[in-house]
Amino acid sequence: FRSKLPDVGTTIFTVIGQLSAQHNAINLSQGAPNFSPDPKLIAGVSKAMQDNHNQYASMTGFRPLKTLIAEKVATLYGSNYDVDDEILITASASEGLYSAISGLVHPGDEVIYFEPSFDSYAPIVRLQGATPVALKLALPDFTVNWDEVRAAITPRTRMIIVNTPHNPSGQVFSAQDLDMLAELTRNTDIIILSDEVYEHIVFDGERHHGMATHPALAERSVIVSSFGKTFHVTGWRVGYCLAPAELMNEICKVHQFLMFSADTPMQYAFAEYMTNPDTYLSLAAFYQRKRDLMQSLLVDSPFKLLPSAGSFFLLAKFDHFSDESDSEMVKRLITQYGVATIPLSAFYTDGTDNKLIRLSFAKDEATLRAGAQALCQVK
Amino acid sequence: FRSKLPDVGTTIFTVIGQLSAQHNAINLSQGAPNFSPDPKLIAGVSKAMQDNHNQYASMTGFRPLKTLIAEKVATLYGSNYDVDDEILITASASEGLYSAISGLVHPGDEVIYFEPSFDSYAPIVRLQGATPVALKLALPDFTVNWDEVRAAITPRTRMIIVNTPHNPSGQVFSAQDLDMLAELTRNTDIIILSDEVYEHIVFDGERHHGMATHPALAERSVIVSSFGKTFHVTGWRVGYCLAPAELMNEICKVHQFLMFSADTPMQYAFAEYMTNPDTYLSLAAFYQRKRDLMQSLLVDSPFKLLPSAGSFFLLAKFDHFSDESDSEMVKRLITQYGVATIPLSAFYTDGTDNKLIRLSFAKDEATLRAGAQALCQVK
Ligand SMILES: CSCCC(=O)C(=O)O
Ligand SMILES: CSCCC(=O)C(=O)O
Repeated sequence: FRSKLPDVGTTIFTVIGQLSAQHNAINLSQGAPNFSPDPKLIAGVSKAMQDNHNQYASMTGFRPLKTLIAEKVATLYGSNYDVDDEILITASASEGLYSAISGLVHPGDEVIYFEPSFDSYAPIVRLQGATPVALKLALPDFTVNWDEVRAAITPRTRMIIVNTPHNPSGQVFSAQDLDMLAELTRNTDIIILSDEVYEHIVFDGERHHGMATHPALAERSVIVSSFGKTFHVTGWRVGYCLAPAELMNEICKVHQFLMFSADTPMQYAFAEYMTNPDTYLSLAAFYQRKRDLMQSLLVDSPFKLLPSAGSFFLLAKFDHFSDESDSEMVKRLITQYGVATIPLSAFYTDGTDNKLIRLSFAKDEATLRAGAQALCQVK
Repeated sequence: FRSKLPDVGTTIFTVIGQLSAQHNAINLSQGAPNFSPDPKLIAGVSKAMQDNHNQYASMTGFRPLKTLIAEKVATLYGSNYDVDDEILITASASEGLYSAISGLVHPGDEVIYFEPSFDSYAPIVRLQGATPVALKLALPDFTVNWDEVRAAITPRTRMIIVNTPHNPSGQVFSAQDLDMLAELTRNTDIIILSDEVYEHIVFDGERHHGMATHPALAERSVIVSSFGKTFHVTGWRVGYCLAPAELMNEICKVHQFLMFSADTPMQYAFAEYMTNPDTYLSLAAFYQRKRDLMQSLLVDSPFKLLPSAGSFFLLAKFDHFSDESDSEMVKRLITQYGVATIPLSAFYTDGTDNKLIRLSFAKDEATLRAGAQALCQVK
């Protein structure tokens, strides 16, 4: 059977999720909370449904929600987006990434991105008949080597995909990274696609260096974010895109046929909920406590933790006590110790094994404690 | 700016929706109910959220919901689908159509479909680097000319897209249509993509002749359906796909990166709700009453109605009293008479004008009465 993605299997999140469930393991694998959202947010959805907001929303999204996003982005990052022409509510950040790549990347184009990376970028690029060009982030800091990027840019480079805070490493862009990216793309028509779903989860008092904080980048960027990650409702499938009107116009051409509109009652609920900025401004401290707890609980484990500056994730190194591959380690952790994580090799198209596993600390305290206890027993 | 879809504008549903809102018109344009779903269904979503079902569902969907779909399809149509490998819950029928076309249609392929048609098919095909081949349905019955299909099939024909009950005409396939389609595709590897979102809305005691009723077609078909159309919640964005495992495997490769999973609390609610088959079996009679009401209310209008055998839609002809184009007529109806409909020409890529407008009768009785009253005044 002639497949468009012959070497693509089932996404690692499903594979590990199933193995984890089979073994009844403590699940630190997928980047999804296992706790409840604010009851107010749930009440908002219930009210919207009862108020008969159950039919198609407008194609680009519920306008009051888009207005709140415009205000948030202007206040936090200093960039202004037109509510009608530059903001799109998507049915998940995944759909936003897909619509952006599908709308903007032509067959024969090249798209630079950085590995380890979220597993959807390269297949989506390939589905457009374009070539994903993977550059490796430099360990142990997972920093971009901008000279390598410069060398990788060709006349066919249509897009560079960046992701900060970074999944799976938990690293973040600095202001200097943004300057380098701006300098490299100046006088080109390269589009930046920036996955910023963890924009509100940056630790240690740092600010988020997203594309909207840098005017020269904002004007060539598509920024993708997520309500699910921010409000503890990854199953509600609502996200958003920001882009200059000219780019947004092309993204909407795909979105309107791929999805038409995002979930209506949930958009109403987010619009009500976001009127209080504390709902998202409190997120960094909330997850920093979880990161700190996890770090302290793992001090006596055999794993060496890498620092995490943002996101839901921590990486843990094990090659000082085991010469297993990361996939073998993950399998053994699930089957023998009852704790599920993700092998970092799953985030490399060439399967590079750095002897690192990814832990999600977006879990309630009991789960973090139980998971850490299991990890402390590993030999 | 180099667009992938240079001649695609904003979807007609958005254009007419906006014009309708501006003029505060009675909206008979979009195929979406303006009434509430069953309060039980809303309560089901609220309960699922309160029970903490707010995170990612499994990639292919909530298993109890998939099991109910398998049972429904076996009972009503006689085809068996494997719950794990042949049923996919999508985030809307739109996403299902997109994932199916994107997963299965290669650059250079040809895809046959029938016009007038829902406006997403051709652009999605073009986004794959494939060629949409539009055949025109024969008026006034909107029947497929199967000899024309035979003549249009080439070695590059990868897929034939069908849609029954048909949007926008309200016509349905007969058992003979299915036999013809089966005969034409026998011994080929042509895939049928069947848009059956109105499967439960077939009038006058007829049964739905979908691909799952015909074993030779079922084995080469991807069937797309919608919970939104069936349960009066078009804004909830959940649908499903049925396909043989080999095809489904390719569709999932796209779905898992495009969307990952559909809305979780809504899937729980549908699963609870569908345990009672009356919830969907009562739909045909419910909409037949609306169709009949609309037909009777328009007897004294200047429009001549075409028969509707299924779906939300009725077509109305006007060339015996006006020589306007259908777009001019629709504009005049909104601006002068305060009633919004869709011009049939929007469903043809070449803009063919048959002097027909499409009315959606998926509206509450007051709206149907007000809309009909406005249409009766047209001169
Ligand atoms: C949609 S995949 C699961 C969530 C996630 O972002 C991750 O675990 O990396
Ligand atoms: C997603 S478009 C609107 C609904 C519909 O199917 C129609 O009006 O034809």
